[in-house]
Amino acid sequence: MAQLTHQRLKAFFNPQCITVVGASNNNQWFANVVLNARKSGFKGDILPINPKAAEVFGIPALKTIEDLPEGQVDFAVIMLNSGLVMDALAKLNAKGIRNILMISSGFAETGPAGQKLQDDMQAYCAAHDIVMMGPNCLGFINFSDGASAFGNTPFNSELHPGPIGLVGQSGAVSDAIATRLIQRGLGLSLFVTSGNEVCMTAEDIMEYMVADGHTRVITAFMEGFRKVPKLRQVAKEAAAKGIPIIMIKVGRSSKAASVASSHTGAMAGNDMIADGFFAQHGIIRVDSISELIETAAILARVPLPATDGVGLCTLSGGLCGIYADLSAKYGISLPSLEETTIAKLKELLPPFAMPGNPLDVTGSGYLTDLDKTLAVLAADPNIGLVASLAIGPTAADDEYANIVNYSFMPLIEKGEKPFVPLIYREMSDYGRHYFDSRNIYYIEHAEMGFKALGHLMQYARFRRQNGLA
Amino acid sequence: MAQLTHQRLKAFFNPQCITVVGASNNNQWFANVVLNARKSGFKGDILPINPKAAEVFGIPALKTIEDLPEGQVDFAVIMLNSGLVMDALAKLNAKGIRNILMISSGFAETGPAGQKLQDDMQAYCAAHDIVMMGPNCLGFINFSDGASAFGNTPFNSELHPGPIGLVGQSGAVSDAIATRLIQRGLGLSLFVTSGNEVCMTAEDIMEYMVADGHTRVITAFMEGFRKVPKLRQVAKEAAAKGIPIIMIKVGRSSKAASVASSHTGAMAGNDMIADGFFAQHGIIRVDSISELIETAAILARVPLPATDGVGLCTLSGGLCGIYADLSAKYGISLPSLEETTIAKLKELLPPFAMPGNPLDVTGSGYLTDLDKTLAVLAADPNIGLVASLAIGPTAADDEYANIVNYSFMPLIEKGEKPFVPLIYREMSDYGRHYFDSRNIYYIEHAEMGFKALGHLMQYARFRRQNGLA
Repeated sequence: MAQLTHQRLKAFFNPQCITVVGASNNNQWFANVVLNARKSGFKGDILPINPKAAEVFGIPALKTIEDLPEGQVDFAVIMLNSGLVMDALAKLNAKGIRNILMISSGFAETGPAGQKLQDDMQAYCAAHDIVMMGPNCLGFINFSDGASAFGNTPFNSELHPGPIGLVGQSGAVSDAIATRLIQRGLGLSLFVTSGNEVCMTAEDIMEYMVADGHTRVITAFMEGFRKVPKLRQVAKEAAAKGIPIIMIKVGRSSKAASVASSHTGAMAGNDMIADGFFAQHGIIRVDSISELIETAAILARVPLPATDGVGLCTLSGGLCGIYADLSAKYGISLPSLEETTIAKLKELLPPFAMPGNPLDVTGSGYLTDLDKTLAVLAADPNIGLVASLAIGPTAADDEYANIVNYSFMPLIEKGEKPFVPLIYREMSDYGRHYFDSRNIYYIEHAEMGFKALGHLMQYARFRRQNGLA
Repeated sequence: MAQLTHQRLKAFFNPQCITVVGASNNNQWFANVVLNARKSGFKGDILPINPKAAEVFGIPALKTIEDLPEGQVDFAVIMLNSGLVMDALAKLNAKGIRNILMISSGFAETGPAGQKLQDDMQAYCAAHDIVMMGPNCLGFINFSDGASAFGNTPFNSELHPGPIGLVGQSGAVSDAIATRLIQRGLGLSLFVTSGNEVCMTAEDIMEYMVADGHTRVITAFMEGFRKVPKLRQVAKEAAAKGIPIIMIKVGRSSKAASVASSHTGAMAGNDMIADGFFAQHGIIRVDSISELIETAAILARVPLPATDGVGLCTLSGGLCGIYADLSAKYGISLPSLEETTIAKLKELLPPFAMPGNPLDVTGSGYLTDLDKTLAVLAADPNIGLVASLAIGPTAADDEYANIVNYSFMPLIEKGEKPFVPLIYREMSDYGRHYFDSRNIYYIEHAEMGFKALGHLMQYARFRRQNGLA
């Protein structure tokens, strides 16, 4: 069995020269690999192998693996029919190439014959110290170091490095997650699709991310676990370092569990055991891509509060009611304010305002001294984090937005307590960019945002209760 | 007590000539009323009254109510200090003006003195056959008939008439809901903020909407009910006509309940009783503005399925797992397919695909004969509604999107079974417009979308089980 040490995986995710076996003009995969490699910043050579074509998508091809130059190639992508895979592996091994991305499908996910083929391949890798990603996967993009071997359609956007690691057992879902993380203005560190995991599993990849020095938040799409003891160890290390793990784990329903087993051959396992395991280790379980994105965004952008308790500020009794109900629903505590806080708020607010938490400053209180009001709220010792109505500006000179938003911008810069803007009314693309480009997390849709806020508060609590913060 | 007959309210929502008492250059409210009236299509005169200014925001003003022309004005907006309201009401009454929008605040929501003032005002209205909206509200916009008296900042968008009625006890929340409904491309029929409800309550307004001939979906933001027997009657009539009522009712948490009572003076009541009442009458309770918008959108755009059971189609086992779990979470049944359906699907799909529900057609099955696959799925007698992956196009010539989307467009046009596109990967503004302009509901965010889909299926079930469909 190949030793998946940090150094070995670091080399895997930083190939110097890549060959692609099975590259052909009939499918787009090879072109995708090249386009993604260039887009992610890969500077090395890419050598396609095709017995019949002199060039593939404009790049000169070699006829056979044997034609590869000696000692230069350290990584191979295989996109052959599954029946041709074993032969290719042996030839690559003979050339000393032992880092393999197996994009090919047609293995355990297709039934007993595929399972047998996969078992043979797995045994061969173990016997010859081959590190393989896949089969039945799309590959990886290493945003931090500028390298990739990734077979999916290239992203429309720039690939800025950032704090989010993503690993997924389903290529399509992981791709949808990555696309939305990028669209939300969040950078990734490393993005991996692990497929059927004959060698490198999601647990190995998370272990690498915890140590890579770039990843501050780990996200994952899982159908089943293959190395539970390692997951336990990784979760412990991540918790100690304050790197939250946010996970979609399908299989809450029996239908999803049976789908998972026919998909990547993973056993979903008993879901209640999974829930208990997650709670014990501070792994944040989410149910949908949107929830994963929101939760990753808030954990990447908002510092963990030092104490429990959220202070909410709005201009409307109606919104106070909605937010109070959502807080109760997602386990967010809204503590009462100190008497001294209330006295100070009474001085600042109109006479008919009745200070509390949620704090309704009223329509008239909203445009006067809001900065002072928020500073008083933030100073209350019961409050760990402040969330207050904000406006998504429509342009740089949006006067109303500027008045409202400058009421809390100094608090965010000062950074004494975490702050979350709650977008009031509709949000423009300009408004999203305004906050995203400043790396400020904002709640656009209250339900999903409060769910994410609940995860943040719960994760901070988990770390405090376990003596980690 | 004024009789709130349909004819009386119809006249109220279609004023011919409006006077505004308390219009001044010092606040923006009068200008907002004028701008909103024009924007909504109001053609009549608007006469401001101000004892000190010859004109207000460029419109010639009258000094006193007594100066109003006889018999022309049928509607008055009052934006005076609360202490001046009784005098104005008497003078308007003397002029025969008995339709009043009371924007002024400073009544029950501020304490015992305000409550006394409100009681006096209510008694005066009852004794003199005055129909009042408010106090402590923003007014209304009648999209269907092109009229309004609305004090809030005008909307940025065009005010197209449409099928959604909206009534809210909180001006700020209702405004946020209306803004997002418009942004989502959904038209409104009538939008009302009811405030402290001394005369016309949310129940009266919903009763009007059920009968107005324009409203097909009613949405509401409620802190408390004032006319429960009428609500029961309205819910029955709405159910009989197939007009769903979607409601945010705050007060799930004790915190929200206490906020509500200090906001508009409404008692939130026992929340479990409210839940039972809603279930019994087919009222759809939602927890947030986003959930309300999504639920209104699906009910306005997707016909009710004739039978229970959703058929899901994706290209990915991973997505099948997520969707199956979300379906279980939101009470959406995913029935097994008939043997004949499975046999037909096997003919259409690649050999390694294993047809079921959710249906994973696999990546290769996704671009071949998808139209036929969906037609087979839709023809299964266990399936009441089909939802399948779709692409939000980025431009008219987006080839991939066109191939995928044309696979289901004929099904939507044929209209034999309801169909919901599930957006795969990210969505562009162009893509949103593409579907919205065709009046096609789509799920962009799976969690909220499946929640809305659950409401649709449950509402259709409610009507069938009560012999209404």
